[in-house]
Amino acid sequence: MEAKKENGGVIAGPTNPMVTPLLTDLYQFTMAYAYWKAGKHQERAVFDLYFRKNPFGGEYTVFAGLEEVIRFIANFRLTEEEIAFIRECLSASCEDGFFDYLRGIDCSDVEVYSIPEGTVVFPKIPLLRIEGPIAVVQLLETPFLNLINYASLVSTNAARHRNVAGKSKTLLEFGLRRAQGPDGGVGASKYCYVGGFDATSNVAAGKLFGIPLRGTHSHAFVSSYMSLDEIIDKSLRRKDGSSTCEDFVSLVQTWLSKIQWSKSLGGIFGETNQSELAAFTSYALAFPNNFLALVDTYDVMRSGVPNFCAVALALNDLGYKAGGIRLDSGDLAYLSCEARKFFCSIEKEFGVPDFGKMIITASNDLNEETLDALNKQGHEVDAFGIGTYLVTCYAQAALGGVFKLVEINNQPRIKLSEDVSKVSIPCKKRCYRLYGKEGYPLVDIMTGENEPSPKVGERILCRHPFQESKRAYVVPQRVEELLRCYWPGISDKTRETLPPLKAIRERCIKQLELMRPDHMRRLNPTPYKVSVSAKLYDFIHFLWLNEAPVGELQ
Amino acid sequence: MEAKKENGGVIAGPTNPMVTPLLTDLYQFTMAYAYWKAGKHQERAVFDLYFRKNPFGGEYTVFAGLEEVIRFIANFRLTEEEIAFIRECLSASCEDGFFDYLRGIDCSDVEVYSIPEGTVVFPKIPLLRIEGPIAVVQLLETPFLNLINYASLVSTNAARHRNVAGKSKTLLEFGLRRAQGPDGGVGASKYCYVGGFDATSNVAAGKLFGIPLRGTHSHAFVSSYMSLDEIIDKSLRRKDGSSTCEDFVSLVQTWLSKIQWSKSLGGIFGETNQSELAAFTSYALAFPNNFLALVDTYDVMRSGVPNFCAVALALNDLGYKAGGIRLDSGDLAYLSCEARKFFCSIEKEFGVPDFGKMIITASNDLNEETLDALNKQGHEVDAFGIGTYLVTCYAQAALGGVFKLVEINNQPRIKLSEDVSKVSIPCKKRCYRLYGKEGYPLVDIMTGENEPSPKVGERILCRHPFQESKRAYVVPQRVEELLRCYWPGISDKTRETLPPLKAIRERCIKQLELMRPDHMRRLNPTPYKVSVSAKLYDFIHFLWLNEAPVGELQ
Repeated sequence: MEAKKENGGVIAGPTNPMVTPLLTDLYQFTMAYAYWKAGKHQERAVFDLYFRKNPFGGEYTVFAGLEEVIRFIANFRLTEEEIAFIRECLSASCEDGFFDYLRGIDCSDVEVYSIPEGTVVFPKIPLLRIEGPIAVVQLLETPFLNLINYASLVSTNAARHRNVAGKSKTLLEFGLRRAQGPDGGVGASKYCYVGGFDATSNVAAGKLFGIPLRGTHSHAFVSSYMSLDEIIDKSLRRKDGSSTCEDFVSLVQTWLSKIQWSKSLGGIFGETNQSELAAFTSYALAFPNNFLALVDTYDVMRSGVPNFCAVALALNDLGYKAGGIRLDSGDLAYLSCEARKFFCSIEKEFGVPDFGKMIITASNDLNEETLDALNKQGHEVDAFGIGTYLVTCYAQAALGGVFKLVEINNQPRIKLSEDVSKVSIPCKKRCYRLYGKEGYPLVDIMTGENEPSPKVGERILCRHPFQESKRAYVVPQRVEELLRCYWPGISDKTRETLPPLKAIRERCIKQLELMRPDHMRRLNPTPYKVSVSAKLYDFIHFLWLNEAPVGELQ
Repeated sequence: MEAKKENGGVIAGPTNPMVTPLLTDLYQFTMAYAYWKAGKHQERAVFDLYFRKNPFGGEYTVFAGLEEVIRFIANFRLTEEEIAFIRECLSASCEDGFFDYLRGIDCSDVEVYSIPEGTVVFPKIPLLRIEGPIAVVQLLETPFLNLINYASLVSTNAARHRNVAGKSKTLLEFGLRRAQGPDGGVGASKYCYVGGFDATSNVAAGKLFGIPLRGTHSHAFVSSYMSLDEIIDKSLRRKDGSSTCEDFVSLVQTWLSKIQWSKSLGGIFGETNQSELAAFTSYALAFPNNFLALVDTYDVMRSGVPNFCAVALALNDLGYKAGGIRLDSGDLAYLSCEARKFFCSIEKEFGVPDFGKMIITASNDLNEETLDALNKQGHEVDAFGIGTYLVTCYAQAALGGVFKLVEINNQPRIKLSEDVSKVSIPCKKRCYRLYGKEGYPLVDIMTGENEPSPKVGERILCRHPFQESKRAYVVPQRVEELLRCYWPGISDKTRETLPPLKAIRERCIKQLELMRPDHMRRLNPTPYKVSVSAKLYDFIHFLWLNEAPVGELQ
């Protein structure tokens, strides 16, 4: 189902055709001109893309967006029309030679090293290291951040929702209508799937990425019916094809009155809403194999659930098994328990096996907190449909990924700031994840590019990059190098292939399971440690002192 | 500059090519099938698109997104490939005739009435009224909401930022890198411009919509230089072309030492950062007409500002006028005041006219609150660059727009809910804005379609739709019908043309100015009144009682 990404080595363009080299900040082009004018544009620079803080008050992040980044650079070329537009935007004094230069650029001499998509990642560790001619790499800053920031944010949000809901629940992404624009919606569907959701309502995302699709009907469908008289064709063939029920409507009505007059079920409701009954019956005639009903248009327990059961029992007579109900308002804990009781009573009273196990789906402004509250109250919901809070990342709408110069012409560079958390870690680096005896990741460590890599069984000092007193010896039982080559440029490295979306999702789920549980809990999670080697620590602080102006107290 | 939308009556497709009929929820197609199967698909339905609550704790909303909606329906057609995909998604039992039906549908028999884009709007009042065959109109629900919810939310957010910043400040949208995906970024640039921003950094948005572009350089540009020795071509022609300065670098150095030794300026700094000085000098050589510098890479007052002034004074010698500085960290109120003092001292000390008026731009995680705090502290900032909080609508990441059935086959429909704010207002309606003596809008009122319209000078009773006791007589001095025909379908109404983006922006700015100030203030704003006619009030409550099941207390 998924669109082919690599066809004989040719990588397809970005999913959204709006992702072009112009999807960048103007200053990337003004800087490119200044570099070119100074004859500096070909200088080889190294940039790190990283974030400074885990989102949602948590201590982990899921990294996503890499595939779109690689698709983007694989097809990076400015068209004549784009160049003409840039010329309009820049100063009239800009020289023609620059536009000739722009005509020739692509990403063939850029190298991209990245942590694999779907990996659990932490602050300060580069998600990507990008090397290449400074003018070109600067142009990539904004689109890279745009493609990675939201992707990682919403994958993380999905993973957090899964963490609260538990493995056994079905999680459906229903956010398209509230998403931040069309591909806020499509991106959300893709990356929520990566983060552990099971399906989406978004048809376009289903087509683009092969994500399972789910959906039934809305309140409008229910209220579009007035009465059972509207149903003209009342016949329904038995599931096994052996015969046809000529009046399915009467069969439904018979069941409704049986329920109404039953000792164990009746009494809690009087006349159910007839337009709702008509809508359910009509929907069952259209989808007898997959009858699901939204039961809260008028009143869940007095109308929706009894009406649903009447239709489900009529279907059962003809050999069909109804799918379940959806609750979209009210007290979901209470209503799901009441509905479950009702289904169990039906199973008992009318001897319909498994009727009590009918699937109950809940939606309506769900988020981590409401899922947690439902768990605490006790509920009978099997599947959750989650929209607004999930896809817009309502609890924290942005991940602050940045793209910082760490080396140029083999000279390490640092960006200082009065806020220590904003000081960048200089040098072209290697990054490793060190695992402990119990198989959990213990610490991530950054080293200079030419330092020997940490070895299994050998003690290594891991230092906090900025706080002198925070350091620890670690004897790793496993060492994993984090950055791999996804775009080799002119180097002779082998390019990692882009895995299919399902594989990214599986990686993500496994990665989350691998973490020590105290890093993952919602309340007061333990921070995962991120460190630098002793040698890199010393160099950072040497460079810092070298670049910072000395103050004078007056 | 702006792409042509209407070419001899032909309306171009949506800006984002991903906006197709599949950009919808699956249940819209399952419902379409159920309607078709029941022979109900051609029944004429009326839907209202509205929201229930103003965002950001405010009492107003800016309506945006209409143009994209009209572009979408003007080009609404399912391709064979899309139909094949829908067939895969639906049950195998679905009949072929349905797919033939899908092959034929478009929006030629749909009518869309809308409030003009850029209007200030309020809860419950339909932003759009959509009429047409129920199966088709349902398919439009999700894309319409997707295209309007975020557009209106971010326009409103921009308007609120403008409201706090004041009319005299320049507001720049810098959010692309943190936006929720590629067209989260492009959409933000478009709709922030509508809401009153002056420019964007997003080049693609500049090209697509003709929005003014702004940008200079980043910290990476500054730290990419090591020393002044890197500057090879040091010559700069005077602005008037009369001669050439062969060593601009020396001129800059001379000015820097003049500043350093000046009585009024020196002393606050020692040696400035030389890589920063090199970067500024190089940028000035590339853009002598538009020299702007980011001054916080190392230290604003000890390095950035003196270095900037040295370069600006050197440029001044050659007839160029520097543009200004940007502050991207630290205490923006304090630093902007210090920088202003420094500029004024330079003006005085060296007799450079207007040097004290140098433009100071501030960025770094700005939002409504920080703008408000800056105003209270006092600052010298002329322009604000706002990103993350603006484009992701961090304070409230979604607008809860909904799309509700209000009539089918000329029968009014209502959607009930235990939560009164979620009960829909039935009937095909007309909506008016009534203006008072002082020219301010007083109240919006909804009436049944066939009620006489409110008349200037005639007393009319305006009732709260749900609260019996809330009602008021109004004698309007001006009556404005809100919903206009933007897509006439098969009716013979005249279609409103789609105005250019600049006109939408101007409408928005005028609309905001027209509001009574107490509705617009940040703290405890007065709610604007939204009402129904007496006749509509009575009908709503008749229908409500009719549809709600009667409870039985036990």
